Amino acid sequence: MQFSNRVNAMDYSPVRKLVPYIEEAVSRGIHVHEMHIGQPNIKTPDRFMDGIQRYSDHIVRYTNSKGTSDLRKAFEEFYRNNGISLTKEDLLITQGGSEAIVFAISTLCDPGDEVLVAEPFYSNYESFIRMVDAVMVPITLKIEENYRFPPKETLEKLVTPKTRAILLSNPNNPTGAILSESEMNDIRDLAMEHDLFIIADEVYRNFIYDPIHYNSFLNMPGLEDRVVLVDSVSKHYSACGARIGVIGSANKQFISQALKLCQARLSVSTIEQYATSEMLNNVGEYLSGVIAAYKERRDRICDLLEKIDGVVCVRPSGAFYVLVGLPVADTDDFAAWMLTNFDYMGETVSFAPGSGFYCDKEKGKSKARFSFCASEPEEIARAMKVLEMGLAAYRNIK
Amino acid sequence: MQFSNRVNAMDYSPVRKLVPYIEEAVSRGIHVHEMHIGQPNIKTPDRFMDGIQRYSDHIVRYTNSKGTSDLRKAFEEFYRNNGISLTKEDLLITQGGSEAIVFAISTLCDPGDEVLVAEPFYSNYESFIRMVDAVMVPITLKIEENYRFPPKETLEKLVTPKTRAILLSNPNNPTGAILSESEMNDIRDLAMEHDLFIIADEVYRNFIYDPIHYNSFLNMPGLEDRVVLVDSVSKHYSACGARIGVIGSANKQFISQALKLCQARLSVSTIEQYATSEMLNNVGEYLSGVIAAYKERRDRICDLLEKIDGVVCVRPSGAFYVLVGLPVADTDDFAAWMLTNFDYMGETVSFAPGSGFYCDKEKGKSKARFSFCASEPEEIARAMKVLEMGLAAYRNIK
Repeated sequence: MQFSNRVNAMDYSPVRKLVPYIEEAVSRGIHVHEMHIGQPNIKTPDRFMDGIQRYSDHIVRYTNSKGTSDLRKAFEEFYRNNGISLTKEDLLITQGGSEAIVFAISTLCDPGDEVLVAEPFYSNYESFIRMVDAVMVPITLKIEENYRFPPKETLEKLVTPKTRAILLSNPNNPTGAILSESEMNDIRDLAMEHDLFIIADEVYRNFIYDPIHYNSFLNMPGLEDRVVLVDSVSKHYSACGARIGVIGSANKQFISQALKLCQARLSVSTIEQYATSEMLNNVGEYLSGVIAAYKERRDRICDLLEKIDGVVCVRPSGAFYVLVGLPVADTDDFAAWMLTNFDYMGETVSFAPGSGFYCDKEKGKSKARFSFCASEPEEIARAMKVLEMGLAAYRNIK
Repeated sequence: MQFSNRVNAMDYSPVRKLVPYIEEAVSRGIHVHEMHIGQPNIKTPDRFMDGIQRYSDHIVRYTNSKGTSDLRKAFEEFYRNNGISLTKEDLLITQGGSEAIVFAISTLCDPGDEVLVAEPFYSNYESFIRMVDAVMVPITLKIEENYRFPPKETLEKLVTPKTRAILLSNPNNPTGAILSESEMNDIRDLAMEHDLFIIADEVYRNFIYDPIHYNSFLNMPGLEDRVVLVDSVSKHYSACGARIGVIGSANKQFISQALKLCQARLSVSTIEQYATSEMLNNVGEYLSGVIAAYKERRDRICDLLEKIDGVVCVRPSGAFYVLVGLPVADTDDFAAWMLTNFDYMGETVSFAPGSGFYCDKEKGKSKARFSFCASEPEEIARAMKVLEMGLAAYRNIK
């Protein structure tokens, strides 16, 4: 009995495969500072919970495959408030940002087609691309260049007749980098010169901690027909389990084709759509409070990482991750060791090994991603102390 | 700008494409008896609604990619009560039965691989198979043979070195047929002799109206490693919008591979999982009440259809659809005409044209599927009167 080459080639989630080690450490009474995953510890807005409570239909029905009219209207207003011009008719509600990305790639790529992806990348991009048998072509960004893009000539060399799209998260997971104006101009020119789509994953759009002008590809003149926005309420509203995402594009044909995929799976969870439409534009100062909290955490973790011997920290301007260089040869081994063989006063720390963010796993071998969305500043300080002690102990025995 | 061959080849939902005509008829003041879609008019169990109300975490978090432990335990008990031996570890929670089918096919088939499907089939099977660039190979069942399977020799001729699986809904959508013991034996032997998987879509398992012994492929000796169960709460619990489904298999390797697909999309809606785990085994006599209601509707619609001149009705033993032969050449045209050009005393009726249930659309041209899940017996009687009058008027002008 055999399974598809597709699933054989897919990896288990590099983040989720640490879970058994964490559970085992916890069962030994160790306190684990969990910094491996992007599950915020911040409350979901009350308006979402109120919406869930107020759902009053006695039948939990299918909705329109595009998403409910109310929710698409709410997103239209949400984008208008964010300076992005997309109407209700340009939007399809999806089951989380994950489904949005899969549907975008599936609408654009046949088996063997290529998608350019800035590397390091959100690990699941690799799986999403494999799910439709397309091929990921990495644009490698280097830590020693602060994860900035290479010049356009380097990008040009990666384009082939099979290249269909560029998939980018901005702000970036895992680096926290925000694209500069010149990087965006290069990507725009590349897309226009080679007839490529830009799949713009903006699920961290509002999480920006430095005085940087953020621009959406949606707003770049000339790109109207080439940009597919991927969005989600998971991160901005601390509602990862709602699984409410969006595809947006001013390209009517794209939306019309992607709708076929939406119709095949019938609809998105009804009650979450209802609660999201109640919440989306009615949370007052919630988001500014969340941003202030994450900025404080970003500052704290980076200040402390920079002081640890041998650690290379590129301070993230956005999102809620920092991808550091560690003075060890194999962070997969170190991550497991921290959970199975180490504690400092009954505590340890979990993080995502860097290999999961690279096509060529070797390139990530000495890197590690710390998420600061789930820890208060004092816990971050404690976790960094534990990390420092763990690094010293590990280097001593290796 | 071009899109993938995959989406170009996909159809819009044959059922959902009638919606604009229905909306237009309603706007003209016509009462439309909606019999085109499988959205029940029966209340979702109170226990589900109570579960939604009782969700108390202040953060709507990701769950385990497999589904919550509580929900998988609840499904283990549910299957035990249904005479099916699957443990929690054999189950993955999915975003509706739709995702379950896509993941099953994706785990088994590479591009170009073939899936045998009994035709007429649930329309979205065609889309799901295309989504992974596999190929649907129909096993055509004929109305004049009461939609029974052809002999095994005929099935044998459809198997090629590329055949990977047989996908079947039992009870069947759209015919309502339930597989006989000899049909199941033939399918079992075919699977074993040619190393095929059986993807058993049992979302209508409990909707059986005749004294027929229902057997699950899960319970056939020798098939343990070859059967993938697809299930959902949508139909049994009248909770289509919850989007809670299941993949089940005693084949550990299959579950382990399919988990990679689950991990890529992170998790299924948290609050619906919670409410489903509260509801699943705690609805008392709910299901027997639903079955009695559908049986009454099945009897009513079939009694009336059989009396209409030129209509061929194969009485369904299960599910909640009847796929009839109509005395018209093109039911796509007739369905649209009924909504745009006809009313009987201010009423008309919507149904799903047969072409959507066949690979070769011609084979379905004179067939139509009526769903009886959304209409009380008196409304069914009214709708059948309208259909009879519409048929007479349409045949008069064509």
